Amino acid sequence: VRVDGRPTRTIWPADDGRAVEIIDQTRLPHVFATRRLSTLADAADAIRSMQVRGAPLIGVTAAYGIWLQALEDAGDAALAAARAALLATRPTAVDLRHALDAMAEALRGVPPGERAARARARAGELADEDIAACRAIGEHGAPLLEALHAQSGRAVQVLTHCNAGWLATVDWGTALAPIYLAHDRGTPVHVWVDETRPRNQGAALTAWELLEHGVPHTVVADNAGGHLMQRGRVDLVLVGSDRTTARGDVCNKIGTLQKALAAREYRVPFHVALPASTIDWTLEDGAQIPIEERSGDELRRVSGRTPGGELATVEILPAGSAVANPAFDVTPAHLVTGLVTERGRCAASREGLLSLYPERAAQGS
Amino acid sequence: VRVDGRPTRTIWPADDGRAVEIIDQTRLPHVFATRRLSTLADAADAIRSMQVRGAPLIGVTAAYGIWLQALEDAGDAALAAARAALLATRPTAVDLRHALDAMAEALRGVPPGERAARARARAGELADEDIAACRAIGEHGAPLLEALHAQSGRAVQVLTHCNAGWLATVDWGTALAPIYLAHDRGTPVHVWVDETRPRNQGAALTAWELLEHGVPHTVVADNAGGHLMQRGRVDLVLVGSDRTTARGDVCNKIGTLQKALAAREYRVPFHVALPASTIDWTLEDGAQIPIEERSGDELRRVSGRTPGGELATVEILPAGSAVANPAFDVTPAHLVTGLVTERGRCAASREGLLSLYPERAAQGS
Repeated sequence: VRVDGRPTRTIWPADDGRAVEIIDQTRLPHVFATRRLSTLADAADAIRSMQVRGAPLIGVTAAYGIWLQALEDAGDAALAAARAALLATRPTAVDLRHALDAMAEALRGVPPGERAARARARAGELADEDIAACRAIGEHGAPLLEALHAQSGRAVQVLTHCNAGWLATVDWGTALAPIYLAHDRGTPVHVWVDETRPRNQGAALTAWELLEHGVPHTVVADNAGGHLMQRGRVDLVLVGSDRTTARGDVCNKIGTLQKALAAREYRVPFHVALPASTIDWTLEDGAQIPIEERSGDELRRVSGRTPGGELATVEILPAGSAVANPAFDVTPAHLVTGLVTERGRCAASREGLLSLYPERAAQGS
Repeated sequence: VRVDGRPTRTIWPADDGRAVEIIDQTRLPHVFATRRLSTLADAADAIRSMQVRGAPLIGVTAAYGIWLQALEDAGDAALAAARAALLATRPTAVDLRHALDAMAEALRGVPPGERAARARARAGELADEDIAACRAIGEHGAPLLEALHAQSGRAVQVLTHCNAGWLATVDWGTALAPIYLAHDRGTPVHVWVDETRPRNQGAALTAWELLEHGVPHTVVADNAGGHLMQRGRVDLVLVGSDRTTARGDVCNKIGTLQKALAAREYRVPFHVALPASTIDWTLEDGAQIPIEERSGDELRRVSGRTPGGELATVEILPAGSAVANPAFDVTPAHLVTGLVTERGRCAASREGLLSLYPERAAQGS
């Protein structure tokens, strides 16, 4: 997509071939700044601090992290340590493990002297595969919006939670890809953007993306979605997934479950857009997914722009109050109307997923 | 209740008999400051700006507003204009209308020269009635917590949304009254406090109240409640009501509906605590309650304390993004396990309410 009219990705190799560059997403929407990641430690820090976030982008950043390690020391022990360090950055998204598995596979049997070049090539392929998958999700999902518009004759009202846009991937996004495509093709779309406390990724990232791309949208508190659905003001809920189980349970940003429950109550279709990289074929029950507990400071402190234009952080809680900050929740498959993947749409069930990924049935896992 | 160990109410007549004083709730939890309301305009402004908020406290403040007007000009026209001005401050809570009706009733046939004294006396009675009602709600609600503790043998986990504590009333609170009473009597209680965006009344007011009173609590994002209930970490949801219809539909702070839907899904009892002043006997269907749409600035801007200790406000949204800010939502009676009133507990239904308020059946309204 474009930023200030210029085609932009969320991660790209630096011109000097010694680093990758990223957008520092913690400073959006107020400042568009990039950061150079030169070492494994830089990559791990960027993931941990959520300068890069979103399951697909976390995976690609980790892949480049293996390359950065290989530039320094491509020995087996160093690469194994790099893998462990990257795996430990974020526990919930499974793309991280999948990307690291793909890198290990690519480097198997490769002599140490050739590993850096091979790692860089494979990480680049993973980035390109992500872009292709997201673009395909857009193609498969846009008809959902186009059909709703054809039915009603008015702008399609889509509610989304958190950021599953191009900033969560390398380009295009997952949940936002169908919205961008439908919009670009002329279907009138209006997006209700959940603020998405405590990190405000809806308010800070999704709103910024949609604004840059010119898609009409309205930011609401996370509390408002149930009310909007009750009053018939939402035609479709469309969200991403950080990990999807083999039976279609969906683990996504905390608060997604509440939206799914409201959608079922008020008969609003609830769709989840995801590339296959987020599917964890080893898990059936979403309750087994580890839910990351993040720092309470994310809830205690809010960052933004002062009237003077500087970035500042304010504390909103009494200092003596305890805080809990689970970062994800699990929406069971029975609350999900359908999944949108790079291979097409399917029911949120084992049968549905296997209809799109039949090779997984043969593997028996 | 006590603030810094000193018994405190949210509103009280000034010593000089020419004004009332309030706690400026917009500066909590960082600054405990009071404000003197000397005129009708002061009272209306305090309600509109939410220096005082909470349905019962809005009603009592409006009653004192009539007194302040009567001190200036107690003529029929002036009092009618005062009533209209106060009614226009907030559209959703019905206590406001009930309090103004009670004042009009008290002044009917009273000679203008005696109206100010009569108004002051009646407003004081309304404040005392509110305290008595909240205390009774505590008495009727505490057994809910005590029974849950007796069953489980561990601390009762209560989730509450927004602030229905003593700050929302004159003293004691509605939803928090049973919690204070059960806690004071020795039942171990832990409260999950919803942050309650966009005004953060949970984080700023409920957490502060509970901290001052020594009740264990944990603040969570509004997004977390569904997850906590899914994982069996909530025994009871207890909230207040800004308007309750004759059939038991409950209009409360935006986001309450999402909690009610999650509570039903995960079989968590969902109780609503309210004094009769919040019951609108003229309405059956909650969908007819006007939902206040407040300024988008409440969502755009967050206020808090800087590291330097000053209060500051930061913008969190891209300037070009639209914002919607509905302040309340309606939870239909079928999602409500029970109501807790000053006369006892009942089902959220016409029959339930009439069992406690049989005089309303005779009135046929």
